This record gives sequence, structure tokens and C-alpha cells, in this order.
Amino acid sequence: MPPDAPVRGFPEAEFAARTAKAQKGMAEEGLAGLLLMTEPDVRYFSGFQTLFWQSPTRPWFLFVPASGKPIAVIPEIGAALMRQTWLDDIQTWPAPRPGDDGIGLLTDLLQPLARDGARIGVMKGHETQLRMPLGDWERLLAALPGLVISDATTLVQRLRMVKSPGEIGKLRHICAIGSATFARVPQIVDEGMPLDEVFRTFRREALAQGADDAPYVVGAAEQGGYADVISPPSNQPLRSGDILMLDTGCTWDGYFCDFDRNWAIGRANEASRRAHDTLWRATEAGIEAARPGATCRDLFLAMSSVIAEMDGTGGDIGRLGHGLGMQLTEQPSHAAFDRTVLKDGMALTLEPSLSYGNGLMQVHEENIIVREGRAELLTTRAPHELPVIR
Amino acid sequence: MPPDAPVRGFPEAEFAARTAKAQKGMAEEGLAGLLLMTEPDVRYFSGFQTLFWQSPTRPWFLFVPASGKPIAVIPEIGAALMRQTWLDDIQTWPAPRPGDDGIGLLTDLLQPLARDGARIGVMKGHETQLRMPLGDWERLLAALPGLVISDATTLVQRLRMVKSPGEIGKLRHICAIGSATFARVPQIVDEGMPLDEVFRTFRREALAQGADDAPYVVGAAEQGGYADVISPPSNQPLRSGDILMLDTGCTWDGYFCDFDRNWAIGRANEASRRAHDTLWRATEAGIEAARPGATCRDLFLAMSSVIAEMDGTGGDIGRLGHGLGMQLTEQPSHAAFDRTVLKDGMALTLEPSLSYGNGLMQVHEENIIVREGRAELLTTRAPHELPVIR
Repeated sequence: MPPDAPVRGFPEAEFAARTAKAQKGMAEEGLAGLLLMTEPDVRYFSGFQTLFWQSPTRPWFLFVPASGKPIAVIPEIGAALMRQTWLDDIQTWPAPRPGDDGIGLLTDLLQPLARDGARIGVMKGHETQLRMPLGDWERLLAALPGLVISDATTLVQRLRMVKSPGEIGKLRHICAIGSATFARVPQIVDEGMPLDEVFRTFRREALAQGADDAPYVVGAAEQGGYADVISPPSNQPLRSGDILMLDTGCTWDGYFCDFDRNWAIGRANEASRRAHDTLWRATEAGIEAARPGATCRDLFLAMSSVIAEMDGTGGDIGRLGHGLGMQLTEQPSHAAFDRTVLKDGMALTLEPSLSYGNGLMQVHEENIIVREGRAELLTTRAPHELPVIR
Repeated sequence: MPPDAPVRGFPEAEFAARTAKAQKGMAEEGLAGLLLMTEPDVRYFSGFQTLFWQSPTRPWFLFVPASGKPIAVIPEIGAALMRQTWLDDIQTWPAPRPGDDGIGLLTDLLQPLARDGARIGVMKGHETQLRMPLGDWERLLAALPGLVISDATTLVQRLRMVKSPGEIGKLRHICAIGSATFARVPQIVDEGMPLDEVFRTFRREALAQGADDAPYVVGAAEQGGYADVISPPSNQPLRSGDILMLDTGCTWDGYFCDFDRNWAIGRANEASRRAHDTLWRATEAGIEAARPGATCRDLFLAMSSVIAEMDGTGGDIGRLGHGLGMQLTEQPSHAAFDRTVLKDGMALTLEPSLSYGNGLMQVHEENIIVREGRAELLTTRAPHELPVIR
């Protein structure tokens, strides 16, 4: 079992600090407010945490003004929980109400800014979504002539990328739970077990080890290697000669781990063992390169140069890892296009992959915190040699 | 254990029929295509099923033309899985690629329609979201002058509301798994067990009973009743006199159950027992009223009139149940505003709730299929009397 869990939640000071940092950035960019509407963005500034976001029915809004605490504009069903956060101004409507699902309240809130021709930020950029009906968004804009909308993606993502000690404590804990779960796989998985049963067993073990949930469990098992890493499991039993990969995003107090492990069932062929060795060393190169001041592009190139020993194509997954936190995948991306400069406290996955043989692939993944000097490994490092489950 | 699982997936004919129905509706509304981008909408017309949607990084697009099979415009990482569906035309790009995350491919695809001043449908209405960056959406529109965008929410939701026999088979199975899990609660939960451990135990049991996952587990336990039904669990041990509620959305092959159960720990006070009796009878009234030709408003009124015996306020949850299927909550809503006419094959939750005492509430929930004559209960009916765990 992993060590004792940290305390759940965050002190108010943490939300106040996040808000103050955002407001500093807003002042620099001339923004009179931020209108946020996704689960992680709302939670980041409020602490509001509920699985209820899984219901697509209701929109939720958080407005971060130029100064002072954020203002919640939310369905009445969330009022009791929101009142437990550090917020004071909580405006609600009895959602669902298709005729006016919060748009009237938002219009009233933003009207004074619109009259002044003020500029507010919304998340419009890479990796964002509009978590409200597009028709309602258009109606809101039409009701607020004069209001200028800017893209606040960089401002918010830049803040969220660097994790606080409290956030890192949660990430460390869920990564320890994930590591303990993976360590149990050779005991709980065996030749002959259908792959969907492997997934189910893994999920149950992750919960037993202390995860709040294991929402993301994907993987594959095929003879000599696998070709697809995002499919649901088949019911095909594990056979000797299969390479099994499991990749999981488990959660604890709203924070994710995201890493994978590979095993050979019964015996490992030469190509898979070579791929494992290559990717293990690519990960080492990534860990070594992950230092403050380096860029994501540097990380990508460090891993790519090792991968090239076995696979010169680069592959089409598009990147070799990403940010990690309240979402399974967050900014930045370890890719040639991403020149984000690494900073102390960034949580990252290192996820080198390569293609080999006839359409096979292998993927490795570890989670780290960028630190002055060498990165902190959150995950128990995968073994250098492809392990065999006998 | 619930009975044997049905076959996973659907035959091609099911996707062909869904597409043909959509195209009939599109012809009636003068739409030259539908551009879809959320997990359930893409899955409904393609069969593409993966947990990878949990990563917010990459947008995914499905275009349903006026005739012929849908066309996928997706990240390369999904190509192998999409090739296993009934689709023929699968266009990919190496996502993430912030400079052009599918927008170039979409522009090429829609350019001929734009030149003709054609009209396409997107989901803009109640309960929808724009699952792509708003900035990319604006860029797409700017690149396609002449293209007219209509709201296709009603068209698509009207189709998805009525479930096929294949879909109902999956819903029946996951509801049986949920029922078997709830039936085990008195054996696996006890006074003194912390609430977060209750949730964890419930999740593990749901998986053991055959659920693919239990992504939605919420609930509460407080003395004499609970006040909030969307919070994460505390670590407070169950005490004699608590009323425990667990509400779960479990999944099997991409379909949800969504129902809850209530128990008293050790002993039940009079108000809670009365609330349970009232809500049980409100649910009966809902089952009785759920007949083809009646409206969601009728269902709401049938349940409300029983609830009014104990609570005249109506409550602020906003509705007394909703549609069910590939999402935890789907259209329609059992609310005074929703005049959707019930049809044979609709999957619905009946979810009456009431307030009592000093800020307490109770919620019941069952899942049904609307049938000619009496509705089919998918869930094992809750007992009329509030059960006591001793």
C-alpha cells in the first residue's frame, strides 16, 4: 500500500494566490475579467469539486473579476456545495431551464463591463472547449454589445502548468497508488485471463490501493506486440507470447496520474525486448533533459534521438508526453512545435513510443515534477528490461 | 450476479439505419450535412468507442453527408480503431497540431458546400457543447464564407431519445448490474464505515458484478437525512440514525444506468420513512404515467402531485428525471417546460425528490423503457419502505 494520504482540498490561501496571480496576468493583458466554464478551470479558482459535471445538461460559470474573489453563476443544485468553498458571491438559477440557462444572470453580471467596452478573457485556444451551448454563447454576445472577447488560454494554462506544493502532494500520492497497482499486476493477471477481465481486475486493484477512481484504463495485448493503444478491451484471453500494455489515469482528490507499463506473457520476443530497452533509455533521456530552462521541444528531441535508433519515422501519435494535473492530459506537449520553457514545479508525463515490425508499436510512460537539478520521479520507474509474467 | 451479457457493439445495419433516419430528417430541414464532435454523437453514427475522449487535447469530427456513410476527420491516433467501424472515409492528421487541428481537413471537406451556399447542422442547443476550441470554430467559419449553420440539436436528440432493441439490451444489462450491486450494499456496508470507503466498496462491487466502470458514484449520509446530493464523500463514519443515499451511473459497452437507493443506518426516523413512502409512490405515479402519447410535463405533474403531499415547494433540482443512454443524462427532462411526447422505446429515469425538515432532502430514482401499455422497469424496484441496515 502507498503511504498515508495527504489532506484533501486546499487552504483558502491557495485559491487566493491562484486568483491573485491570474489577476496580475489580467492586468498586464488589459482584461477586466475571465469567464470560465470547464470543470478544471472552475475548480482551479474555486475548489468546487463534484462528479456532477458528468451530466452534460447544465452549464456552470465562474467569473474572475479584475479584483476580489471569483463569482459563481451556477445551477441551484450546486449551491450547497459551492457555499463550502471560499467564494462569497454565488448566483444560481433552477437549471435546467432551456429558455435561460444562466444567460440572464451572466448578462446582468457583465452588462457594466460591456457598457464600458471592456475586454474579458475566455478559453478559446488549443486544448479548450466551449462548455455551454454554442447558441447560448451567441445569445450572450448579442446581449452584450461593446464587450470585447479575448483568448485567455495562455494566461490560464501558464498558471495551471506550474503546480503548487499542495497539488504536487496529491499528484505524488496518486502516482504512488498507480505504482502500487502496477506492481501487483504480475500477481493478479495470468495467461488465460480475458483482456476485459484484466482491465476490470486492474480497476478493482487501483481502488483497493486507494484511488478514488480509475476512469482511464486502456491497453492492449497481442502476439509479439500491439498495434492500437486506445481501444476498449476485447475478451480474448492472454496467450503466451503476448505483449500486454496497460495505461491508466487514476484519480485522487481530483488529480490524475497517467502512466503505463508493459509485460510479456510467458515469453518475450527479441523485437519487443529491444523496443522496451530503447524506450526505457528514451525515457531516461527525457528525465535527464527535463530541467528548468529547457523547452518541451528539447524534451521531445532528447527522447526522439534515442527512439531513432529503432524507429526513424517518429510515429503519428503527435507528441511524446504532456502536462498532467486535474486533467488526464494538460498543456504543454512534448512536441517539435511546443517551445514552452520548463519551470520548477511543472508536472509532466514522459511518453516515448515507437513503431516496429509490421505495424506494431510500444509505449512507455512516467510522471515527473520538473525541479532545479534532476526531475523528481512521481512514478516508480519501470524496469529496464521488459518483465515477463510466467 | 446479473444474467449473461449481450453481445458488445452493434451490427452495421444499426448504424446504417441511424444514418438513414438522420438523412431523412436532414432532407426535411434542408440540411446538406451534419458536423458532429462530441463522444456520444460521433459514437452514435460510427460505433467509435474509446476512453481516449477523456483527454481534452484533441478534437474529433464526424460529418454526416446528405447521403452515404459518415466521414471521420480525426487524429491519426484514432485511425486504427476507426477503421474497425463501418466507415470508409477516414481522414486524419497528426494531432495535436495547434496550427491546424483538423481545420484544414474540415475546410477542404466543406468547401464545395460553402460554395453552393449550403446549410449544415451543428449541435448548438440545450444540453450541447462545442467540443473544439472556440477559436478554431471561428476560423472554420471564416474560411467558409457562404456556409449556413443551423441548429441540429432537435433533429439528433429526437433520434437518440428512442432506443433500438440493441441499445435497450445494453441498458437492461447495466441496470441489472446496478441492481445487483445495490442489493449487496447491506452486506458490504456497515455502521462505522467511513463514507469514502462506502463509495470505494460500492465501486469495486459494481465492477465485480460486471460493470465496465462506475464513473459516477455520489451520495451522502447524515443524521436523519441528507442535504446535498452532488458532493464527494467525506471520511465520516456511518452512524446509527444516518440516512445513506448512493446514486450511481455505471457503464456497460458505453451505456449508462443512472439510479439511486436509500438506507437508514441502524434506525430510521419518522420523517425519513415518510419521505421514502412518498417518493416511492411518486415513482409509482411516474411509472404509471409513462405511456406513449403522454408528455414529459405529464410525467412531471404526475410525480409532483404525490410529492406535494409532503413538500409543496417543488424543490430546486429543476426536474424529476431525464433521458438515459450513452450519457448519464440525456434529453428529455421531466419538467414543466418539457412537452416532449413519450414514444415506445424511450429510456428514461424517474427521479422524484423532496425537501423536508430543516434543509434535508431525499431522492429516489428508477430507470424505465417506455412501452405500449405499462413501462418496462430496467431496475429492480426499490422497496416501498425505507430499508434499515442493522
